[in-house]
Amino acid sequence: MEEPLVERFRELWDQLAPIGRDAASGGYLRYAWSPAELRLRDWFAEQAARRGMPVDADGNGNLFAWWGELDTVRAGDGTGAVLTGSHFDSVPHGGAYDGPLGIVSGFLAVDELRQRGVTPARPIGVAAFAEEEGARFGVPCLGSRLFTGAIDPDRAAALTDADGVTFAESLGGPPTGARPDLLDRLGAYVELHVEQGRGLVDLGAPVGVASGIWPHGRWRLEFTGEANHAGTTRMADRRDPMLTLAFTVLATNKEARLRGAHATVGRVLVEPNATNAVPGRARAWLDARAADAATLAALVEAVRAKATDRARRDGTTVTVVEESATPLVGFDEDLGGRLAGLLDSPVLPTAAGHDAGVLAGHLPTAMLFVRNPSGVSHSPAETASDADCAVGVLALADALADLATR
Amino acid sequence: MEEPLVERFRELWDQLAPIGRDAASGGYLRYAWSPAELRLRDWFAEQAARRGMPVDADGNGNLFAWWGELDTVRAGDGTGAVLTGSHFDSVPHGGAYDGPLGIVSGFLAVDELRQRGVTPARPIGVAAFAEEEGARFGVPCLGSRLFTGAIDPDRAAALTDADGVTFAESLGGPPTGARPDLLDRLGAYVELHVEQGRGLVDLGAPVGVASGIWPHGRWRLEFTGEANHAGTTRMADRRDPMLTLAFTVLATNKEARLRGAHATVGRVLVEPNATNAVPGRARAWLDARAADAATLAALVEAVRAKATDRARRDGTTVTVVEESATPLVGFDEDLGGRLAGLLDSPVLPTAAGHDAGVLAGHLPTAMLFVRNPSGVSHSPAETASDADCAVGVLALADALADLATR
Repeated sequence: MEEPLVERFRELWDQLAPIGRDAASGGYLRYAWSPAELRLRDWFAEQAARRGMPVDADGNGNLFAWWGELDTVRAGDGTGAVLTGSHFDSVPHGGAYDGPLGIVSGFLAVDELRQRGVTPARPIGVAAFAEEEGARFGVPCLGSRLFTGAIDPDRAAALTDADGVTFAESLGGPPTGARPDLLDRLGAYVELHVEQGRGLVDLGAPVGVASGIWPHGRWRLEFTGEANHAGTTRMADRRDPMLTLAFTVLATNKEARLRGAHATVGRVLVEPNATNAVPGRARAWLDARAADAATLAALVEAVRAKATDRARRDGTTVTVVEESATPLVGFDEDLGGRLAGLLDSPVLPTAAGHDAGVLAGHLPTAMLFVRNPSGVSHSPAETASDADCAVGVLALADALADLATR
Repeated sequence: MEEPLVERFRELWDQLAPIGRDAASGGYLRYAWSPAELRLRDWFAEQAARRGMPVDADGNGNLFAWWGELDTVRAGDGTGAVLTGSHFDSVPHGGAYDGPLGIVSGFLAVDELRQRGVTPARPIGVAAFAEEEGARFGVPCLGSRLFTGAIDPDRAAALTDADGVTFAESLGGPPTGARPDLLDRLGAYVELHVEQGRGLVDLGAPVGVASGIWPHGRWRLEFTGEANHAGTTRMADRRDPMLTLAFTVLATNKEARLRGAHATVGRVLVEPNATNAVPGRARAWLDARAADAATLAALVEAVRAKATDRARRDGTTVTVVEESATPLVGFDEDLGGRLAGLLDSPVLPTAAGHDAGVLAGHLPTAMLFVRNPSGVSHSPAETASDADCAVGVLALADALADLATR
C-alpha cells in the first residue's frame, strides 16, 4: 500500500531540513553556489535520477529534470512542455519554504500523476532556478533573467558577491545567456510557492491562485554629510546624514501607509560607523511595491521630496538612484481562471517577485500559493502545515495533468 | 644655525603623513597594533633613540621615552617625573592630528628645552598610550585604564576586535595591568591635543588650556522586532525595529539640543540588513555628553523614554545598555591656572575623553589644545596650521620647563 502523501512530503522535507540551517537563528543560509546550495543541487539530481528524469543544465545555473522527451516537442507550435519548479537559494536567515517547497512539490506531483496513471501528451519538467533572491549577487531572478534573455550575460558574469567573487567564477565560466532553443519548447509554467502574507489565512483556504505581481523596485538612497567628532562638535555645527536617513525611514513608512503600498528600508550602511563619530555618509535601500505603476511612482517621488527637504534642513545631500524596477506582471488570465475553477481556489495578488514573473513575459504562466499561518516570510518564522503542503501537491498535480493532457 | 621650529615640525610631520593614510578618503586607518600603528611605534623608538631617551614598555601596550633617570625619583614624595604625550591610534578614516600631534610635540619640546639649556630637576617623559580611541577593541583609553588599574586586566585581555582577535593576542600576551611602580613616580601629566571644536577659532587664540572633560558615555540600544518579507508583509502586520531606531535617532538629536548637550548615533548594525527583508533586529550606539552629570542622566533617560514609547507603537522592544560612563573630569585647578597664566592662554572645557582624563584621577594633570581651523575632528578635514603647531610646541616646552624645574 502506498504511503500517504503527507508522509511522503514529510520524508522529502526532512531530507532538506538540516541543509544550510543556522543553528542560532533557525533560519537558512543557502546562497547560490554556497556549500548548502550545492548539496541541494545534488539532492535535485538524485531525486530526478530516482524518477528516471534526465537533468538539463542551461549554462546559466538553472537545472531542469524532464519526464518525457523534450526533443519531440515542436518549438513554437503552442503545444510545448509543461514546466513547474522554483528555487533553492535563500535570503540571509530565510525560511525553509520560500523556494524549496515548489521543487519538492514538483517531484511529488510527478509521483502523484504516475500513481494516477496519467499519460502526459507532452513533457513535464521540474526546474530549479538559480539566485532567485539576489542575496548573493544583488540581482533577483538572475537565473530566469539569463535563461529568457532579460539580462545581458556579460553584465551578469561581472556581478560580484560581498567577497568580490564574480558570478562567472561561481558558475565556473561565463553564463550562456538566452536559451530560445529551450524556452520555445515550453508551453506553460506553473510555480508553487508558500504564501508570503496572510491572504489565504484570512480567506480560510489552503491553496490559492495568483492573479499577478505588483510593480516593484529597489532604490539606493545616498546621504552625504560631514564626518566629525561626536563628542566635541556642537549640534548646530553638524551636518549629520544619519538624521536625514532616520527622517527618510519614517517618511517612507508613512507614505506607503497613505497609499496602501508596501515600502521598506531594510538595509543600511553607515560610514565610518563608529560610536564616537558623526557619520560622513550613509546609504539606505528602499524596497517599494504598489498595486499599480502610478501609485508606486508617486510613493517613490514623495519619499524623494521629503528626504530632499529634510536634507536641506540638516545641511546634508541626498540622491536617489533606481537599482531595479519591475513593472506589473499579470499572469495568464485564461490559465489562472481555469486553474482557480479546477482547484476551487481563490485568486489573490502578490507583492513579491518570482521567476514566474520573469517567465510570464514569454509563455502562459501561473502561480499557486500554499497557506502560511504566520504570514511571515524571509524569516525562520515562515511556515506551512504538512497537510496544506499535501493539498498544494495535489493542486499542482491537477494543474499539470490538465495542462499536459489537453 | 638651528632650523626654525616650524620647519622642524614639518619635517617630523611629513615622516608620519603617509603611514596608514587611506588614499580614497584621505583619512587614517591606524588601529592599535595594525601594521600602520606598528610603524608609528617603530618611529617612536627611533625618535627616542636619536635623543638618547631610553624606552620603557609597561606591559599594557603603552610606551614611555625618558629624559633623565626615573629610578632617581622617590615615589610618593610629590616631586615625581613630568610626563607628556598622547596616542597614535585613530578612529576609522580619522584625521592626522588627533593623537600624534601630542607625541610629536613632546619630542620637539624636549629639543626646545635642550636648546634653551634647561636642566630639568626631575625626569621628563614622552608617552604613547595604546588604543585611546577604542576603535579596535571598543573601550576608549584602554592603555591608560590598564596602566592606572581602572580596568581589570583579565577583562581587557578578553576584549575582541571585529575579526575575533583578542586584545591579549594582539598585545602578544596578557596585559600586566596596574603599574603603581611607574605611576607613583609621576608628578604631573600634560597632554597636548588638537582642539576638536571651534572654541579657539572663536577666541582667536592658537593655544588654550583645558578646564575639564564633560561627563560622557556610550549606551547600546537594542531594538527587536520581527524579520519579514519586505514585499508581501502588510504595513499593519509589521513589527519593524528600523522604525523605532529611526525615531530614536531623531529624538536623540532633539533632546541633546534642548539641553545644550551633545548626542550622536554614529554606529548602526541591522539584521539581516537585506533590501527585501523587514529587519528582525537593529542595534545602535548612543554617544552622549553634557556639561554636568545630572544633564547627561536626564538626556539619556529622555531618549530611553521616547524610544520605549515608540517601540510600543511599532510592536517592537528596545533595551538600553550602558557600555561605558565617565564622570566629569576636572583637571588640576592649580596647574591649569598656572599654565594659563604662564602661556597667556584662554581656558576652555572639552566634551572629548582623553588619556589625560584617566590620569587626572591619580596625579596633577593638564591639557593644552591647539587651534583647529575646521573645528572638525575624527575626519580627514581635521587640521592645524604649522605655525599654530609650533606655538603649541613652545607652550608645551614652557609648561614642562615650569614643572620640571620647580
